[in-house]
Amino acid sequence: MFQSFEVATSPETGPARLSAVRGAMATAGMDGFIVPRADAHQGEYVADCDARLAWLTGFTGSAGFCAVLAHMAGVFVDGRYRVQVRDQVAGVFTPVDWPETKLGPWLSQNLPKGGRVGFDPWLHTRDEIAALRAGAGDAVTLVAVANLVDQVWHDRPARPSAPVLAYPADLAGATSGEKRARIAKELCEAGQKAAVLTLPDSICWLLNIRGSDIARNPVVQAFAVIHADGRVDLCDDIAKYAKLGPDPAIAQVPRDGFTAVLQGLTGPVRVDPGSAPLAVFDILETAQIDVSEGADPCILPKACKTDAEIAGARAAHLRDGAAMCGFLHWLDDACNQVIAGGRVSEIDVVRALEGFRRDTNQLRDISFETIAGAGPNGAIVHYRVNDNTNRDLAAGELLLVDSGGQYLDGTTDITRTIAVGPPGDEERACFTRVLRGMIAVSRARWPRGCSGRDLDALARFPLWVDGFDYDHGTGHGVGAYLSVHEGPQRISRASDVALRPGMILSNEPGYYREGAFGIRIENLVVVQQASMLGDGRDQLSFETLTWVPIDRRLIAVDLLSGNERAWIDRYHNEVAARIGPLVSGDVAAWLARATAPL
Amino acid sequence: MFQSFEVATSPETGPARLSAVRGAMATAGMDGFIVPRADAHQGEYVADCDARLAWLTGFTGSAGFCAVLAHMAGVFVDGRYRVQVRDQVAGVFTPVDWPETKLGPWLSQNLPKGGRVGFDPWLHTRDEIAALRAGAGDAVTLVAVANLVDQVWHDRPARPSAPVLAYPADLAGATSGEKRARIAKELCEAGQKAAVLTLPDSICWLLNIRGSDIARNPVVQAFAVIHADGRVDLCDDIAKYAKLGPDPAIAQVPRDGFTAVLQGLTGPVRVDPGSAPLAVFDILETAQIDVSEGADPCILPKACKTDAEIAGARAAHLRDGAAMCGFLHWLDDACNQVIAGGRVSEIDVVRALEGFRRDTNQLRDISFETIAGAGPNGAIVHYRVNDNTNRDLAAGELLLVDSGGQYLDGTTDITRTIAVGPPGDEERACFTRVLRGMIAVSRARWPRGCSGRDLDALARFPLWVDGFDYDHGTGHGVGAYLSVHEGPQRISRASDVALRPGMILSNEPGYYREGAFGIRIENLVVVQQASMLGDGRDQLSFETLTWVPIDRRLIAVDLLSGNERAWIDRYHNEVAARIGPLVSGDVAAWLARATAPL
Repeated sequence: MFQSFEVATSPETGPARLSAVRGAMATAGMDGFIVPRADAHQGEYVADCDARLAWLTGFTGSAGFCAVLAHMAGVFVDGRYRVQVRDQVAGVFTPVDWPETKLGPWLSQNLPKGGRVGFDPWLHTRDEIAALRAGAGDAVTLVAVANLVDQVWHDRPARPSAPVLAYPADLAGATSGEKRARIAKELCEAGQKAAVLTLPDSICWLLNIRGSDIARNPVVQAFAVIHADGRVDLCDDIAKYAKLGPDPAIAQVPRDGFTAVLQGLTGPVRVDPGSAPLAVFDILETAQIDVSEGADPCILPKACKTDAEIAGARAAHLRDGAAMCGFLHWLDDACNQVIAGGRVSEIDVVRALEGFRRDTNQLRDISFETIAGAGPNGAIVHYRVNDNTNRDLAAGELLLVDSGGQYLDGTTDITRTIAVGPPGDEERACFTRVLRGMIAVSRARWPRGCSGRDLDALARFPLWVDGFDYDHGTGHGVGAYLSVHEGPQRISRASDVALRPGMILSNEPGYYREGAFGIRIENLVVVQQASMLGDGRDQLSFETLTWVPIDRRLIAVDLLSGNERAWIDRYHNEVAARIGPLVSGDVAAWLARATAPL
Repeated sequence: MFQSFEVATSPETGPARLSAVRGAMATAGMDGFIVPRADAHQGEYVADCDARLAWLTGFTGSAGFCAVLAHMAGVFVDGRYRVQVRDQVAGVFTPVDWPETKLGPWLSQNLPKGGRVGFDPWLHTRDEIAALRAGAGDAVTLVAVANLVDQVWHDRPARPSAPVLAYPADLAGATSGEKRARIAKELCEAGQKAAVLTLPDSICWLLNIRGSDIARNPVVQAFAVIHADGRVDLCDDIAKYAKLGPDPAIAQVPRDGFTAVLQGLTGPVRVDPGSAPLAVFDILETAQIDVSEGADPCILPKACKTDAEIAGARAAHLRDGAAMCGFLHWLDDACNQVIAGGRVSEIDVVRALEGFRRDTNQLRDISFETIAGAGPNGAIVHYRVNDNTNRDLAAGELLLVDSGGQYLDGTTDITRTIAVGPPGDEERACFTRVLRGMIAVSRARWPRGCSGRDLDALARFPLWVDGFDYDHGTGHGVGAYLSVHEGPQRISRASDVALRPGMILSNEPGYYREGAFGIRIENLVVVQQASMLGDGRDQLSFETLTWVPIDRRLIAVDLLSGNERAWIDRYHNEVAARIGPLVSGDVAAWLARATAPL
């Protein structure tokens, strides 16, 4: 079982650890120290050795930070974690509502004028520290220091050391050499001598490697520099790479040699101010090496999947779709038991689903913690069930299940909302609005050059016209056996990045009624050149990757247009044709029923 | 008759005038001189005294410019005018395809290194000259000079001198004093001592005045400065203002005193680099007065109409709608004559329509030259019929009519596309796609903060999914008895300006099949706080202002969703209820037929 439901609350360890950090602060001459959740690679997950925030405070949420002062220690968490933080941290910590309260002003308010606050420049980006300095004003000085938590964390776990695996070039659709040549060419054209890479998925993409340094994302947490001649300096624990053959173009350097690699560069060197640690800028600037700010050069080519990666994604989605169908068949049986008076909990649902994915024998990991929200829990957008919140399914309620798998050939992410027993009219009307938005995005075609921002309203229109909306983006980018959340593309009013062929995105409108129910319907799609129609314009469109029935019991057919109804019937017909051959017995019979025309 | 159909081609006057300008160029030590269509106020229309481009070249289009060199004179025109320019200019001028060919590179290509090109700094904005200098590179020097056309244009018409009229505060919804206090407060808050105003509609809005200096837009072409204490220096021909009572807060200064007014200012002075003449910046900078770049402070408050202006717009649209119904009834009769073998031309259509508007006895002007495009002429987006292009209506073709009126209480702009005899299936399918987009925008609700960019795709989606699109924005802002094209709001992928209550916009998707037909359906709408629906979100929506039947013969009902069909029936029901009482006899009978349920 990948997912755990334990609520790790050990607030009792906090006070002594806080005292130790305060001691280190005093020794360092600091009036404060910032302990972020993030590590040097700025991903969603951190290795145990980098879980400094959890070690210090007991808070295990996926975002936040602690600002330690001599007389106060604020734990800044967002709306998802307001309840959880109170359970997890001791009374010596003060939960702070973030981002309503920002760190800069909080520091200047709680410190005397002239206060000095330390931070580890490896754990913050340059953009982040610039914003913090602007918010803190002149009264507080922010000082880069060696990490004070690390100084007092005596039983700190070792860095992950699992072996790195080669990712087959036939799945990647390009050799690492080809990718390096492409990036090198871009650097040459920009007049840059090298680019610094600190994002694990960029390095994994570039070198065609995968690892298991952290949960959920099969990445390697390394640092690298790519030179304008295509050579790469790769800074990591060399032992992890023993299974890979040597490559003369890749110089392996111990992780602690990264600073020396940077100091040996000739400028201009491209560094991404939005993702690289501030320390990288400081080292280069101290060494008087010319820095050229610019996006990590791997991000855009990584986002535009090759034909081989798209073929892999199709295969992974068929496999995952068959597992989902097994699960949904199981779930319908479970719902019948619930109606008959039996008990089925959210955790039962999560366990069953992971089991069906494991039964494929190809599941490397789940791609994120499964969200299984029954009734009102479905309305909590970032809900993760644990032993304390676990809720039984109840007849007449909805169940929202958002999950995904990591397979060697692709990363999946799918949400289905299921009726537990006959649903109410209001639930069906809301589900149908969400479905119409999801269909609109699925059917969309658009002139090349449009961004996710230009399409976002299509998903919301059926909700908007009735006075509803949802407070999250419509879609995020997805990696190829990499992170399930990948930039730069998004379907969101906040995204100006033009959609390009090969980009994989989620299409996941939703609707959430607090205290009652949550609805989300999510397929993955990939941007493609649109077929020639009409007057033959250069248009892009989406190819659907996800093939799993959408709960027909929740569709109010009379609220659909003819085109929308035809889309659903076509979709279900395709699901039957593609998944049918992969399932048998009761599941096959269930699939036939679940994909019948409306 | 406001509209004229004469094609003023007098290419024979060009050569002598070109020689005269070249003579002035030589005297001034210039190797070139730029003659734009624009005047100092950067509007769509120019007064006769400012029609320098037409005087010099004979070209009468609404955009373009001439670059006069000693051995060549390029007339730069866009796609609308490629044919017309060849008819209107003599062989001494060289038509240039613009913007494909840009002026800067053209100058550096056609002049020896070190060439000096003059321009009149009153006729170009600072942004425009900055872009031109960047495009021309180092080889060419651009020099601000006194206008060389004016030096040799001996029979140049006088500036317009028609009296300025007070615009009633009860129609404007605010007194000029209230508006000035509001702008003054904004300047104070920005720490600015004054703002320079050079846009005629900004000045008319601020001072509650209207004029007749140019065609179509009832504006006064003045310059002004508003001070942070609310006082205004108004620079124009003082005699024009004789009918207005004196206002101690408004200092009247002759137009040629504007420079002295600028020189007497204390900084910081707000100037809009996108609309103010470069000369304004030069004068202030020479006088060492601190300039603060910023948008003309009247633009946004002018765009957000008051309740009184919206009430006026509603009244103007009912009046204009009744006139349009009279016209459409006439047109149906005319179409029947065409089917019976009679002849009706585009010019007949334009004349008839203007007649119906004149018959209201309240028409001050048409709000732009009526577009009446029959058959393939409908596919020419900026088509204006003249004696050379005039085409007879033909059975089976479509007729696109885009027109509007200037009334004291509001400016209208409406497009209807009419079937001349029974339309073909392809025409009906295309019309219905366009209609569906127009309905989507009409029905839209959206969270406060969205811009026109966020809504644009709603209008295009029904075209996009079938491989079609249109190459213009979906909507433009409209003034209150001011310019029919008014910023800053637009429904367009190019517009990031948040939509705010009171903004009036057009909603005009279209489809154009070259050589065959053109379709556009346009209503004006005004942004309003949306009624409470759903879960009570803070949403905005559109109130429709235009009430005129949409040709039912062109609607393929089976392509509409239930909501769309209901919208049309509701709309027509409202048209009948609102316009019915304003028409009688045959027109009333026609209206009842034209607004029957689908």
